Amino acid sequence: MIGLGKSFAKCALVLILAVTFMVGGQIKSADAKGKTAKYVFLFVGDGMGLPQRAATAAYTGRKLAIDTMPAQGITTTFAANRFITGSAASATALASGVKTNINYIGVDPDFKSVKTIAEMAKEQGKKVGIVSSVSIDHATPAAFYAHVKTRKMYHEIDVALARSGFDFFAGGGLKDPEGKKSEAPLGNALEMATANDFTIVDNKKDFMALKPGDGKILAWNQWLQDGKALPYVMDMTENDITLPEFTSKAIEMLDNDKGFFLMVEGGKIDWACHANDAAASILNTISFDESVQEALAFYEKHPDETIIVVTGDHECGGLTLGFAGTKYGSHFDILSNQKVSFQKFTDEIFADFKKQGGDFDAVKPLITNNFGLKFSGDPKKDALVLADFQVAEIKAAFDRSMAGKDNSNGSEYLMYGEYEPVSVAITHVLNQKAGLGWTSYKHTGVPVSTSAIGVGAAIFNGSYDNVDIATKIMTLMGLKATPQYVNSGKLQIAAN
Amino acid sequence: MIGLGKSFAKCALVLILAVTFMVGGQIKSADAKGKTAKYVFLFVGDGMGLPQRAATAAYTGRKLAIDTMPAQGITTTFAANRFITGSAASATALASGVKTNINYIGVDPDFKSVKTIAEMAKEQGKKVGIVSSVSIDHATPAAFYAHVKTRKMYHEIDVALARSGFDFFAGGGLKDPEGKKSEAPLGNALEMATANDFTIVDNKKDFMALKPGDGKILAWNQWLQDGKALPYVMDMTENDITLPEFTSKAIEMLDNDKGFFLMVEGGKIDWACHANDAAASILNTISFDESVQEALAFYEKHPDETIIVVTGDHECGGLTLGFAGTKYGSHFDILSNQKVSFQKFTDEIFADFKKQGGDFDAVKPLITNNFGLKFSGDPKKDALVLADFQVAEIKAAFDRSMAGKDNSNGSEYLMYGEYEPVSVAITHVLNQKAGLGWTSYKHTGVPVSTSAIGVGAAIFNGSYDNVDIATKIMTLMGLKATPQYVNSGKLQIAAN
Repeated sequence: MIGLGKSFAKCALVLILAVTFMVGGQIKSADAKGKTAKYVFLFVGDGMGLPQRAATAAYTGRKLAIDTMPAQGITTTFAANRFITGSAASATALASGVKTNINYIGVDPDFKSVKTIAEMAKEQGKKVGIVSSVSIDHATPAAFYAHVKTRKMYHEIDVALARSGFDFFAGGGLKDPEGKKSEAPLGNALEMATANDFTIVDNKKDFMALKPGDGKILAWNQWLQDGKALPYVMDMTENDITLPEFTSKAIEMLDNDKGFFLMVEGGKIDWACHANDAAASILNTISFDESVQEALAFYEKHPDETIIVVTGDHECGGLTLGFAGTKYGSHFDILSNQKVSFQKFTDEIFADFKKQGGDFDAVKPLITNNFGLKFSGDPKKDALVLADFQVAEIKAAFDRSMAGKDNSNGSEYLMYGEYEPVSVAITHVLNQKAGLGWTSYKHTGVPVSTSAIGVGAAIFNGSYDNVDIATKIMTLMGLKATPQYVNSGKLQIAAN
Repeated sequence: MIGLGKSFAKCALVLILAVTFMVGGQIKSADAKGKTAKYVFLFVGDGMGLPQRAATAAYTGRKLAIDTMPAQGITTTFAANRFITGSAASATALASGVKTNINYIGVDPDFKSVKTIAEMAKEQGKKVGIVSSVSIDHATPAAFYAHVKTRKMYHEIDVALARSGFDFFAGGGLKDPEGKKSEAPLGNALEMATANDFTIVDNKKDFMALKPGDGKILAWNQWLQDGKALPYVMDMTENDITLPEFTSKAIEMLDNDKGFFLMVEGGKIDWACHANDAAASILNTISFDESVQEALAFYEKHPDETIIVVTGDHECGGLTLGFAGTKYGSHFDILSNQKVSFQKFTDEIFADFKKQGGDFDAVKPLITNNFGLKFSGDPKKDALVLADFQVAEIKAAFDRSMAGKDNSNGSEYLMYGEYEPVSVAITHVLNQKAGLGWTSYKHTGVPVSTSAIGVGAAIFNGSYDNVDIATKIMTLMGLKATPQYVNSGKLQIAAN
C-alpha cells in the first residue's frame, strides 16, 4: 500500500514544482522561439471542464470550434490552499501566473498585488477589453483588473474597474457601485467611470449602435437575471445581447494599430453546473463556443498576429457522460424538451405557483410543459414518461419545496444542494434520462482542457498548470514569462 | 433552442468525418515527416479516463509519469453504433484504425477482418508482445491478434492466439482453451500453442527466470483472482507477478535487431471502476504507470528509435473528483485505509461471513478492519466515523446482501449495480468521504487523454479520435496511415 499521510500543502508544492520545472520550463524553451502576438484573446469557460465540452459536442452532434483548434492541452487547476479551486484563485492564476488562496483576487497568498496580463497589455499600449456573461465585477473578470483580499469586495472591485484605464467592459452589471455593502465606501464607481471617460450603455439598441471612436465603454444587458448576470441563453429573448454579440462588438471597438487584449468569460456555464442543469450549461457552452468563433473570424484576417487561448477555470458539478440508470445508453436529445433554465423555473414559474398554492397534481402540467417529463404513459415506449420511483423523487422534492425547509445539512443537501428542491429533482431526472450524471453542487478537481490557435499556439500543447497559461501568454506578448508584482506588491484599490 | 432530433448514427458519422478530415489529416501532414520507430509501445489503460489519471495523481501527490510525457492529446472513443463504447470496439479502433460495433473484435461493422498494427509489425519482421492484467483473451488484447464476431468467442480467440505467430503473451490466463463454451470447438488451444513453439509458464519463479533465447512465451500468474485475471494490486502478495514485472520481462524477451511491438493493457482499472472502487482503481493505475516507466527506461537507451503511446479505451464509472457531501473538500488519504479490493472482500471475507451468518453488529468489525470506516465516535473529529445516514446506507445494503435479492432493476440497480450490495455501499461511502463521486457502473462517453514520447510523438498532441491512434502509429511504423483488410476481409479464426 502506498503511504499517503502527506498534507495537501505538501502535495500542492510537489505538483507546483513538477509543473514548473518539468513541463512549463521544457515547453517554453523548446517552442516559444520569440514569436509575439499583437492581438491576444483569452476565453475562460467558467466551470467548463472536459465533460462540459464533451456533453455539448454530443448534444449538437458535431465538434465544437474550440475542439478543432490545433493546440490542445490538459490543465491542472488547484489553488494554493485547496485541491478544488475557486474562480478567484483560478482567475488570478490565469491572469497573473501565480497560485493564490481561495477567494483572493489579483494578489498572491501574502496579499501582494500581482500584475495581470491585461495590465501588461495596457502598458504595451494595447487596448484592453473585459467581457463576461455574469456581473463584470465577478471573480473571473475582476482578477484581470482588481487587487483585493476577497472576491466579495464588489464595491472596491467596481472602483478598480472605473480606475483601470481599460477600454471596454461589457456583459453583466456591477454589484455594488455605490458601496452599500462596503465597510469604507469609496464613492460612486459609476460616476468615477463617467469621470474617467467611460460611456455607460444599458440596452441592446444603444449597444449595437456603438462604433469605434465612441471611446471607453461600460455596457450591460438590460435584463440582468440573477446576481447582475446575463440571462441564461435558453431564457433570452431578442431584446437581450448575447455573448457572441458582446464579443463581436468588443473586437470592433478594440481593433487598433497597437493591438489589443480581450478576455471573455462564459460565466453562467458554471452557475448552471452548480445547480446540475445540463441543458442550461450546454446552451451556454454553445454560445461560448460561438463567441470564440467571432475571434476565429478575426484570426482569419490576422493569422500571423493573433493568438486565441480558450480554457476553463475548473470543472463544476462533477458532470459525467453516463448514468447508472441508462447504463450504456445516451439520449442527449431528451434535453431539448427543456424550455427554461432551473433559474427561470424557480424564480418565475414555480414562484408564481407557490404564491397561488396547489398540490402535486397541480404542478405536474408546469413540469411537463417546461421540461417535457410526463406523469402518465408507458416508460418503455416514451423516454419522457417518468418511472414510479422518479415520480416519487420529484414528489418528495415538491413537498420539501412547499414546506420551505432548510436543506443545508446531511442527506437533504446531497439531494438538492442549496437550490429549490423541486427544480433540482426535475433537472436531475431529466439529465439522468439523457444519460448524464452529476456528483456535486460545487467545483471538482479534475483537470480542464485548454485549446489554442495562432501565433506560437503550439506551446499550449501538453500537460501544464493554470499558472502556466498566464506565463505562456506573457511569452507570446514578448514579455518575460514570470509573474510580476505591481506597485511593489502593495495592496491598493487602483493605481490612481 | 438548438434542434436536436438527429439520430446517434448521424452524429457519429459527422464526428467521424470531422475527426478524419479536420484533425487527423491536418496533424499527419504537418508533423509526421517520415520519422519511423523501430520499437513501438502502446499502453492501454482500460477504463482510464482523465478522472482516473487525476485521482491517482491527487492520491500520490505527484504527477504520473504519463502526465509528464511531452505530447498530450484528447481522444474521443465512441463506437460505430453507440456513443458510449466498449472495450472490443475501442480496442479494434486502437489496433486497426476502424470504427466498429460493440463487442466486435478485429472486424469492421460488415465483419470484414481488419489488419492490426501488431500484425503489421509482425509482417515487418518485428517481434510482437501482448500483455494484460486481465485474461489474455479479453477484448482489449484479443483485438490485436483475433478477428471474431464477438468478444465472447473466447475459445476462437484462444485458438487465434495460438496461431498468431506472435512472440510473447503474458498476464492473465485463457478463458476457454478447450472450447467448452464453443459451438464448434477447434481443439485445445494450449496444445496448439505448444505445437507452435510456445513455452507455457504459470508461476512467478519460472517466469522471472525466462531469458532471451527461450523462444515464444505464453505466461500467466499462478493466482488468477476473477475471470482469469491478475489479482488487484492491493490484494497481491510477493508470489504474484506485477504488471511492471510482466512489462519488464516482455521488453527483455522481445528486444532484437529488427525491433518490436508491445501492447500492455491495465485491464483491472476498468473492473474496479465498474464496481466503483476508487482505491483498487487508483492502485492499479499506479501499477500501470510503473509499467510505462519500464518502457521509459528502454526509451532512454533508444530515444531516436522508440515511440511510447499511452491511452485509455474509455472512461468507466463516471468518476469525478468532487462529491456533494464533501463540497470543496478533498480527503484522498482516507482511501489508504482500504486494505482489500471490493472483489476480495466480496469473494473471501464477506462470503465467509455469509456462510457463518450473523447480524449487522457482527459485520461491523470486518468493515472497520478492511476499510477503516468506524461505527462509533465523533464524525467531526475523525473523518472515518460514519454519519447516521451513512450507517443506514450500509445497513440497508447489508440487509439486501444477506437476503440475496435481485438488484438488476429500478432504484436498487442505481444503488448497487450488479455487485454485492454491502461491498458497493462500503466503497461508495469511503470514496464519498474522500471527495470522489461515481455516476454509473458502466463506461461513460467523456473523451480520454492520450500521452506520447519518442520518435514523432508530437503527432499525438491535439484532439483526435481513437481510430487516429492506430493510423498515427502506422505512420510512425513507416506504413500508409490507412486501415487495411486482412485475407481480403474474409472472416476466419487465423491465418493458418
